[in-house]
Amino acid sequence: MKKYAQLTREELLALEEQLLAEFKEEQAKNLSLNMARGKPGKAQLELAMPMLDVLNHAADMNTILGNDTRNYGDLDGIGECRRLIAAMMEVQKDNVIVCGNSSLNIMYDTVARSMLFGVNGSTPWCKLEKVKFLCPVPGYDRHFKITEQFGIEMINIPLSETGPDMDLVEQYVNNDPAVKGIWCVPKYSNPTGISYSDETVLRFANLKPAAEDFRIYWDNAYCIHHLYDDQHDVILNILTECEKAGNPDMVYIFASTSKISFPGSGVAAIASSINNIQNILNIMTVQTIGHDKINQLRHVRFFKDIDGLNAHMKKHSDILRPKFEAVLNTLQEELGDLGIGTWIAPRGGYFITFDSMPGCAKKIVALCKELGVVLTSAGATYPYGKDPQDTNIRIAPSFPSPEEMAMASKVFVLCVKLASVQKLLGKF
Amino acid sequence: MKKYAQLTREELLALEEQLLAEFKEEQAKNLSLNMARGKPGKAQLELAMPMLDVLNHAADMNTILGNDTRNYGDLDGIGECRRLIAAMMEVQKDNVIVCGNSSLNIMYDTVARSMLFGVNGSTPWCKLEKVKFLCPVPGYDRHFKITEQFGIEMINIPLSETGPDMDLVEQYVNNDPAVKGIWCVPKYSNPTGISYSDETVLRFANLKPAAEDFRIYWDNAYCIHHLYDDQHDVILNILTECEKAGNPDMVYIFASTSKISFPGSGVAAIASSINNIQNILNIMTVQTIGHDKINQLRHVRFFKDIDGLNAHMKKHSDILRPKFEAVLNTLQEELGDLGIGTWIAPRGGYFITFDSMPGCAKKIVALCKELGVVLTSAGATYPYGKDPQDTNIRIAPSFPSPEEMAMASKVFVLCVKLASVQKLLGKF
Repeated sequence: MKKYAQLTREELLALEEQLLAEFKEEQAKNLSLNMARGKPGKAQLELAMPMLDVLNHAADMNTILGNDTRNYGDLDGIGECRRLIAAMMEVQKDNVIVCGNSSLNIMYDTVARSMLFGVNGSTPWCKLEKVKFLCPVPGYDRHFKITEQFGIEMINIPLSETGPDMDLVEQYVNNDPAVKGIWCVPKYSNPTGISYSDETVLRFANLKPAAEDFRIYWDNAYCIHHLYDDQHDVILNILTECEKAGNPDMVYIFASTSKISFPGSGVAAIASSINNIQNILNIMTVQTIGHDKINQLRHVRFFKDIDGLNAHMKKHSDILRPKFEAVLNTLQEELGDLGIGTWIAPRGGYFITFDSMPGCAKKIVALCKELGVVLTSAGATYPYGKDPQDTNIRIAPSFPSPEEMAMASKVFVLCVKLASVQKLLGKF
Repeated sequence: MKKYAQLTREELLALEEQLLAEFKEEQAKNLSLNMARGKPGKAQLELAMPMLDVLNHAADMNTILGNDTRNYGDLDGIGECRRLIAAMMEVQKDNVIVCGNSSLNIMYDTVARSMLFGVNGSTPWCKLEKVKFLCPVPGYDRHFKITEQFGIEMINIPLSETGPDMDLVEQYVNNDPAVKGIWCVPKYSNPTGISYSDETVLRFANLKPAAEDFRIYWDNAYCIHHLYDDQHDVILNILTECEKAGNPDMVYIFASTSKISFPGSGVAAIASSINNIQNILNIMTVQTIGHDKINQLRHVRFFKDIDGLNAHMKKHSDILRPKFEAVLNTLQEELGDLGIGTWIAPRGGYFITFDSMPGCAKKIVALCKELGVVLTSAGATYPYGKDPQDTNIRIAPSFPSPEEMAMASKVFVLCVKLASVQKLLGKF
């Protein structure tokens, strides 16, 4: 098949007619499929059900140190859970606070604390004229919603297959004292699936921020969320590299077991330098007496150690891989040669990113919706919901079954084709 | 025995000598007892252990509406848990958001939201010159720590056996637009154990705040935490009364199951007008995707309904009552006629409040510490830790065993006597 751009007007019109006919057929199927959010599917949720058995009425509820997990205390989390999560985050136990069920909530609170109290003694951001965050794009919509809610100005930074454009990051961070942070998903990035190269991580660690209270918000959401047994992305340890570079306090790392045990009932954590951790605890001690330690203990008793976590993640990947492949195969088969879209085959994480011809993403999402396939809103992967080129679409293959995923992918490529043809015909 | 104030100097000196001898004896025992915090005792924690069995690997994890509690969603909590907690809080399901494990955290976040975003569209408090909260005293130290951390000026309001001094409350709230809130523990108050009279609640509901963003922070922590089967305190429903008085949005109510199921692993909630709830959710939706719904389901499956909650609380009271009585009996027997202290016998809650002679509380707490009995720091029940008369001591009888509690009470009255004698002798 020829590239769409090389087709004549007549060929395009004929193609449109054919696609519209297919569109009608699909419409008649009354599908109802959701590829909008990175929600684990039912089979994945079943994997962790035995976790509910490890603590029963007769269980020993004490930590190794003898603290009763059922009572108040242990603001920073129980020791054995800090150790488990530290191993996952590739840091030491004392660098970690294990909190509640949501790393998003920890990120929110971390920014909120900075707004209200500053960072380790700096001026509270709410007292400043202007606070800016750098936002590698496309990125995670919920990061952008946080900074937007706090009135923080967001600056787009293009993300390539090796990470954010570091020339631009350095230029902003090292020169503008209003730049206080950057959102990063360094591994199996949301939504593009790429992992930061060693050079990228090193350049991050070696930033010379104009603002003393600049921090890297390193959301390592997919740290052990590989899709393939034999092809893991590996990224450099940002905490270690920051230390080496003389910037020990420059990074906050976030992670959770939301996509390991249960979304909403996992454990989430922040890791950072001992100095930062102490500063956080000094404020957090007023916010709460402590987090859910029984759930922390449940996680430790079930997963035991990092090997247990990794073995469990292999089961997840066995479920996820066919879904990702269903999408990727369909994209390759149906769109491979047409020049109307590009995508990245990720080695982990929860998303496949798709870039349409300029100006087509919104249209594609709308067409899919007409056929009963819900995608993340076009634009959501950009600050303020504004994708300047209107090209990026985030596909979340995890929730539907592989069969549903195959159906949804067919719908998706049909809509990509139709939108592209109509775009080339100047119809929108 | 004569009142201490009526003793001659010689009699006081002889008494001091005798008390110092007793003090030495106690010191030799090397006690290590803690009456500092309202922590449930081990026997209480055992009561909820069967709750850990209700959700096992084979459990139906769906809500009544068919939502999978294991996955993301339900920001406001699962319906059946909202209904359960609403019954406990004596409001309707739609007035409630069930959140995570800590009502303190909800209160903190509620004040933090007001600091950052204002209240339902009012000016964010962090943009104001001055924000003030009224603090009925003695009160809950952790309330005061929150307002202190946010730099909110705290104003002491005397608390009597019917509630806060409402003349003073009205004077402040109705005239000073900088007064944005008041901390209340309306039932079995922390630490005095009193419950607000109907007149007090009605006067609260009928306030005419100078500030549109004034709210009553109604921490109903001990709503069903009775000590006696046949003598429950009953307070008027503040939400209903505020509605009737034309102030539907004026109150936020907080509660949790921390002292019903497990401290740190219970469920906590905020209740308010639908308008307030919607305003809170609008901001909260950026903070988190949702709270721990599995734990919410666990609570519903175990307690079932308000009758289940009340039946469970009866078991708690059977454990707590002897501990409270051990303290109260000792106080009555040992200090009853001496004129060196007053206390209140509460019908519920977690504390017994004790007022020493002026200027003695710090000394008593210090003496107890020397004998291995840890009490809440003197002054903690006042904003900024400053008890102007240095009289108030909060006794928390829940954690030690009844035997330990009897020992600790003996130590306490000994220290009260010794401090009082030395005060009368002008020794400090």
